[in-house]
Amino acid sequence: MAAKKAKKSDRDAVTLAKIERLAREVLAQATRGANPAVEIRQRSLSNVSFNTKKKIIELGDKTQSREFFNTAMARKFMQTMIVAQGCKKLIDEGKTVSIRQMFYMSKHTLDRSNENTFEDQSESDPIIEDLEVGIDALREELHLFANKRGLVVGKLVVNDAGDTIDLARMGRGGWGIPSICESDQLEFVKNSADFVLLVEKQAVWLRLNEDRFWEKNNCILMTSEGQAARGARRLLQRLATELKLPVYVLVDNDPWGLYIYSVLKQGSINLAYESMRMAVPNVRFLGMSASDYKKYKMPHAAEIKLTKEDLARAEQMKAYPWFKDARWQREIQGTIDNGFKMELDSLLTKSITFMAEEYIPKKLRDRDYLQ
Amino acid sequence: MAAKKAKKSDRDAVTLAKIERLAREVLAQATRGANPAVEIRQRSLSNVSFNTKKKIIELGDKTQSREFFNTAMARKFMQTMIVAQGCKKLIDEGKTVSIRQMFYMSKHTLDRSNENTFEDQSESDPIIEDLEVGIDALREELHLFANKRGLVVGKLVVNDAGDTIDLARMGRGGWGIPSICESDQLEFVKNSADFVLLVEKQAVWLRLNEDRFWEKNNCILMTSEGQAARGARRLLQRLATELKLPVYVLVDNDPWGLYIYSVLKQGSINLAYESMRMAVPNVRFLGMSASDYKKYKMPHAAEIKLTKEDLARAEQMKAYPWFKDARWQREIQGTIDNGFKMELDSLLTKSITFMAEEYIPKKLRDRDYLQ
Repeated sequence: MAAKKAKKSDRDAVTLAKIERLAREVLAQATRGANPAVEIRQRSLSNVSFNTKKKIIELGDKTQSREFFNTAMARKFMQTMIVAQGCKKLIDEGKTVSIRQMFYMSKHTLDRSNENTFEDQSESDPIIEDLEVGIDALREELHLFANKRGLVVGKLVVNDAGDTIDLARMGRGGWGIPSICESDQLEFVKNSADFVLLVEKQAVWLRLNEDRFWEKNNCILMTSEGQAARGARRLLQRLATELKLPVYVLVDNDPWGLYIYSVLKQGSINLAYESMRMAVPNVRFLGMSASDYKKYKMPHAAEIKLTKEDLARAEQMKAYPWFKDARWQREIQGTIDNGFKMELDSLLTKSITFMAEEYIPKKLRDRDYLQ
Repeated sequence: MAAKKAKKSDRDAVTLAKIERLAREVLAQATRGANPAVEIRQRSLSNVSFNTKKKIIELGDKTQSREFFNTAMARKFMQTMIVAQGCKKLIDEGKTVSIRQMFYMSKHTLDRSNENTFEDQSESDPIIEDLEVGIDALREELHLFANKRGLVVGKLVVNDAGDTIDLARMGRGGWGIPSICESDQLEFVKNSADFVLLVEKQAVWLRLNEDRFWEKNNCILMTSEGQAARGARRLLQRLATELKLPVYVLVDNDPWGLYIYSVLKQGSINLAYESMRMAVPNVRFLGMSASDYKKYKMPHAAEIKLTKEDLARAEQMKAYPWFKDARWQREIQGTIDNGFKMELDSLLTKSITFMAEEYIPKKLRDRDYLQ
């Protein structure tokens, strides 16, 4: 079946040129009898650092060469070419697939052998990351999607894949944040929000959406449903940079909540090469803070004893270069000194609408946040 | 803070009457000096059976009495009253909360003691189930929500909580299926779909949505994102009964996929008392079938070896009374005989759009499904 050629965006044209350059270079090397090789920046801890000026975690310049005539590398070299070919096909046909689906697209038995190109997705995922770093194109640009997660409502009208969507008319369900939130598919049509509030937990988002928090406070209300997926992070970055909206984050008062905030803010060590396109360095930590316990006279019912793992994680956090500021040190130490963590849901011990009508509005009014 | 009384729907009025009757009965018993007690249908395996006529898993009539003056039951009795009181408050104020949030609403230290009403959510969750069974009101009617999961797009216009939402204009993101899909909040405004297709996996849904499957095939396209949440099940049942739409289900070819289908169809043993409101007995199993391997000339790349657990699970399935039909026995035995399972994603080994343009349309045309 001949696939239709899809109309390409500028972004697609750029990515395609990168893939084609890779292919041409390999071909040229092979033609002149040289050992085909690809230079890829190392994705190891030793090549990751915190850029104190940009305030993001970055990948350094150390590279490694992947050679075809090298028994340790030949298989990976072949796999890199197969995945690159698959991505070219996706761009040509204007389609996107999941990284699992790319595994199936790429898996086959090599002619005249019993050898499979890929045995398992654990082989293809790192190859995708190699390709991203190798040709400097994010997986979104390679037409690969991660599982999407997260919902959004509020005072924003978007156009996605041709549909105009008013996020103020989404009922209780909300709009599912797409996996790929790049500007050639998702456009901001009309913004009338003053800020973005991102809550970690879906149940808290549901509660706030039911109370029409976003309407009363003129904002965009998102939930990441746990650790933010790539789509949610990219959307947040675009809201912060293109629409210049302040972004507030509301997570549980525990080391995991703080980690979710931290990844939003400066990226993660594992995916350091993507920070530039994902991180939102000026994202504001609105809560839940260790000091809220006294400030809001929380009852004992809100306390959950810290585990040994929580304590170890909190100490680790204190050592992060991006939490060196005295106020962050106080915040983290505050939880350690409390001896307990608190969930956002525990604000329900005060009243059903306490969070929407008192806690968050007061914090915003008092500019009671960390950055 | 005095809470506003919310306008109540007929459904709310009925639920409130049930809670008030419970309270009045307990009060009357106490007033006349009797031991206050509540009769609750037993939620044990021995009180669960498959109703071959209705084709759903049902809870039987065996009851147990919960008494106040009984050291083994006093705590649970108190807890049941506290949760009932919390639900009354929610209905009065027109709010909903998660079961975790209800735990926090109900947790406090008893006056003049060190005893907490609840120590842990594992104490409050069964009390909620007791209350549901005890007064015959689903948790949705008690204004409690489970975490929501699932997305929907397609040829249907709904009104949810006052917003009119055209599910044919949801871009790539889709509308998030609400936790509570009852008719007083979610109305069907205009349907032009011929059927519903529910796919287990989000990535498959994303692929089909990108190919505009629902537009070309005039349907509603849902994903349950794994095992269907309560909201998705209830929505599916309403689409099947109120709009009389045939529902097709597409899951992986493995025992877990079959289990997802099975729960949609006749409910689960754990939540047998809810089958009437959740199960869709005539839901159709479209695939992925063990026989698809030969029928669609799948490559070896699609095979994933069955584990010992898979085999044990498949044998269990064969013994279920609702899979006794010869065609079901053949289907399950087919997977065992294959010796491997297959994921929907493996259809990508054929081509990117094979699933949307050949596999599903052919199955629908040939009426190639099990029921």
